[in-house]
Order: sequence, then structure tokens, then C-alpha cells
Amino acid sequence: MSKLPVIEIFGPTIQGEGAVIGVKTMFVRTYGCDYRCSWCDSAFTWDGSAKDKLRLLEPETIVEELMALADGNFDSVTISGGNPALIGEGMKHFIDLLHRKSIQVAIETQGSRWQDWFYDVDVLTISPKPPSSGMKTDWDVLDHILRNMKEHGRATHNLKVVVFGEEDLEYAKSVHRRYEDVQLFLQPGNDDVKEAGDISGRLLRRLEWLFNKVIADPALNRVRVLPQLHALIWHNKQGK
Amino acid sequence: MSKLPVIEIFGPTIQGEGAVIGVKTMFVRTYGCDYRCSWCDSAFTWDGSAKDKLRLLEPETIVEELMALADGNFDSVTISGGNPALIGEGMKHFIDLLHRKSIQVAIETQGSRWQDWFYDVDVLTISPKPPSSGMKTDWDVLDHILRNMKEHGRATHNLKVVVFGEEDLEYAKSVHRRYEDVQLFLQPGNDDVKEAGDISGRLLRRLEWLFNKVIADPALNRVRVLPQLHALIWHNKQGK
Repeated sequence: MSKLPVIEIFGPTIQGEGAVIGVKTMFVRTYGCDYRCSWCDSAFTWDGSAKDKLRLLEPETIVEELMALADGNFDSVTISGGNPALIGEGMKHFIDLLHRKSIQVAIETQGSRWQDWFYDVDVLTISPKPPSSGMKTDWDVLDHILRNMKEHGRATHNLKVVVFGEEDLEYAKSVHRRYEDVQLFLQPGNDDVKEAGDISGRLLRRLEWLFNKVIADPALNRVRVLPQLHALIWHNKQGK
Repeated sequence: MSKLPVIEIFGPTIQGEGAVIGVKTMFVRTYGCDYRCSWCDSAFTWDGSAKDKLRLLEPETIVEELMALADGNFDSVTISGGNPALIGEGMKHFIDLLHRKSIQVAIETQGSRWQDWFYDVDVLTISPKPPSSGMKTDWDVLDHILRNMKEHGRATHNLKVVVFGEEDLEYAKSVHRRYEDVQLFLQPGNDDVKEAGDISGRLLRRLEWLFNKVIADPALNRVRVLPQLHALIWHNKQGK
């Protein structure tokens, strides 16, 4: 009943993006998403293509697997999806188990659902999806999440928007205006998440484009622009 | 008397490395260094090759130049060198002027000299130099700086070590053990700061090497590993 749908457990590796970029971490990827982003780099978490790898696991079992993989060789666990915020009680219990072992917990979600365990997360990344995703932002839900996190007092949350083009950048700016007191990270999108081989040249050109956009725009003085380091190094390989 | 020796003022650009990686910032580079690192990527700040560009400027004049370059288009100024910690009163006054304009100040220094204005800096990066630099760390001075910053209470400082090889990595680990409560950033070194053209492939291979070292070593669970984004995008060009 409190089991979690898990599609991947791997690591340790280095967090390649966002607020805790560069941190050594294990990854737990949950199955299932309420979104279907056109450019999703983890579509196997919701499109059925990897359904045979889906397992329903007790929180204790996930912790055991993490320890079997790398006991003593990590202090951080990153929970990604899919959308981990589709999961309620089981996730809260899992976070508690990790904290009891003094492990820091980072979670990324698109901000389409609230969960009370958001308060317990050490680094909560809320990543609303721009127009290029094909998804629509529910601003009421997003407002609710950001208001709750702010009122809770500990600044453990941040915003992240992936940017593919001008329209996405306008969207990011509207997010920035709306939640001006929350650190916003911008990340250039990966236009082809299936391309084989070395994609670093293409990704660096997109990073340069986004750097130049931010440099030119006084409305973006306080954002931070970061690439996906894992994609620069390991390209489109899964489990890295 | 309170003038600062300045060799470069440029920006806005994006901070490419360290604790505030990804932040839009202006750069002020001071002239003069008590070190002579073998692989220094800013040797023109001390080797005499750009002495004709050195100017002694009042803090007010530097602020005016920053505003003339990009008034309203930045909220952060990064002061680098050379070693900015060779400068006393003039630097304190410069930092005060920036703060009066609500501009955040980030400074990087190797930790070979203490200055009372370290307390005023918003993000102080202390970057002791590993064996490959050819420099010797004065541990008494470094201890003094880290003790002062800790006792001051605001955690505005971080450590950064550039790593070229195994011996440097051992040095980084000794720094990490010595100051275990301070966030340590590791950065792969740029082996050839004069190479023309696209050096991103070489730099990414060094980043991968360092990622794998950290992934394999339980003594490095809490460090953060970051590249120099400016060098990945703009290569060895100065003023970026």
C-alpha cells in the first residue's frame, strides 16, 4: 500500500544539473507521469516502453538496494521521475528512512501536484514546463506549491525552466516575475534525446545561445544558467 | 592611497565556475599576485605582459565604469585577480559602494593573505593551490582565514581546488579533511591555457576523469565537481 513504483535505481554518479549541480548522488527514478512532454528525456518512465522494468517496492527495499549498490559511498539521493509528486505516503516514509541515515534528499517535480512531504525534502526543484513541451501549466497549483514552500520558512526550494527557444524564454520570464523571490535556474533543452554519439558540441552551442540571451536581458539579472553536465559527458546514455 | 590596481573590467557575462556558477556578473580583475602558478590562466595579471593595461583607479571610478558598461543589466560583481586579497582599504570601500547599489559581491583568492573585508563579501571563494601549481600552501594563514570566517557565523565562504592529477587530488582531500564543514568545489584544470580553437573536448574528458575519481572515493561524498563553463563555450579567449 505504501509501495513506490520504481523504474531505475543507479549510482553513485554526479548530479549534472540544477541547484545541486556537481553533487555526488544516487538516483531513484519513479514510474508514472501526469505530463507527456514532447521532448522528455525520460519518456521510458511513462510511455510503456520499459514497463517490464517497473517494480513496486517498499521504501525499505529501495534503501536496501541503494546500500547494496554503494553503502558508504554516497550522502545524497536524488528522486526523479516521471513525477515523484504522484506518490504520497510511501514517498514520505522513504524520505524519512534516508534522513535517518543522514542522507540528503533532492527531488524534482514539475509542480503539477502538491504533497505534504515537500516540506521534508532538502532540495526541492520545481520545474514547470514551457510551451515547447506541449503541456499547460496549472498556475493555481503552482501558486499553491510556491506559497506553501515560502510560508514554511526554510528556503529549500528552487525553480527550474528548460528553454528550447524564444517562446520558452518568455515563459521562463513570466515564471521569474511571478515568483521573484525564488532562485530560478534556466537550462537549455536537448533537442534530440535519441541522437547517438557525442552531442556535446550541439549542447554547448545551445548553452552559448542561452548565456547570450541572459546577458542581454536586464529582466534576467538574477537567474542562473546551467547545462546538463551528464549529457555533455555521457551524452544520451541512460543510467548515468 | 585607496586606489585599486585594475587590469580588466568587463561584462556582463556568466560566471563559469565555482559556488555561483551560472550567475550573470560583471568582472573586475585586479593586478598583482603573490603566487606564480605554473598553469595560471590569468598570468597577464602578474607576469608583466599586460602592464600597459594596468590602471590605478579610485573605487568610485571603477563603479562608474561598471555602470557605463551595463547600468541596470547586472546585480553581481565578481572580483578576481591576481590576488585581490593583496589590497586593503580600497577594496573595502569598493565593496561598500557596490553594496549601496544592492549589488552582490563575489571574490576569489588563494587564501595566502587575510583581509578584514572578507567578512563583507557575499560569496568568498578560497582557492588554495595544489602541488601542480608549484606553490606552497601556508597552512597557518589558511587556518586563520577559515577560523575567522567560521567564527563570524555567516556561511558566505567556500573552498575550491583545481585538480590536474592524482597528487592534486590527494591535496584536495587533505583540504577537505582539514575543513570538513566547508563546502569544497573541485574543478578540473585546463592543461593548456594558450591552445587556440575549440578545447571543449579536452576539457570534458578531464571533467569525466574527475567525476569518476569522485564517484569512486567515499572520502569525497560531499564535494561538488564543476567545470569552467566559460572555457567550454568561449575556450581560451580573454575577457569572457
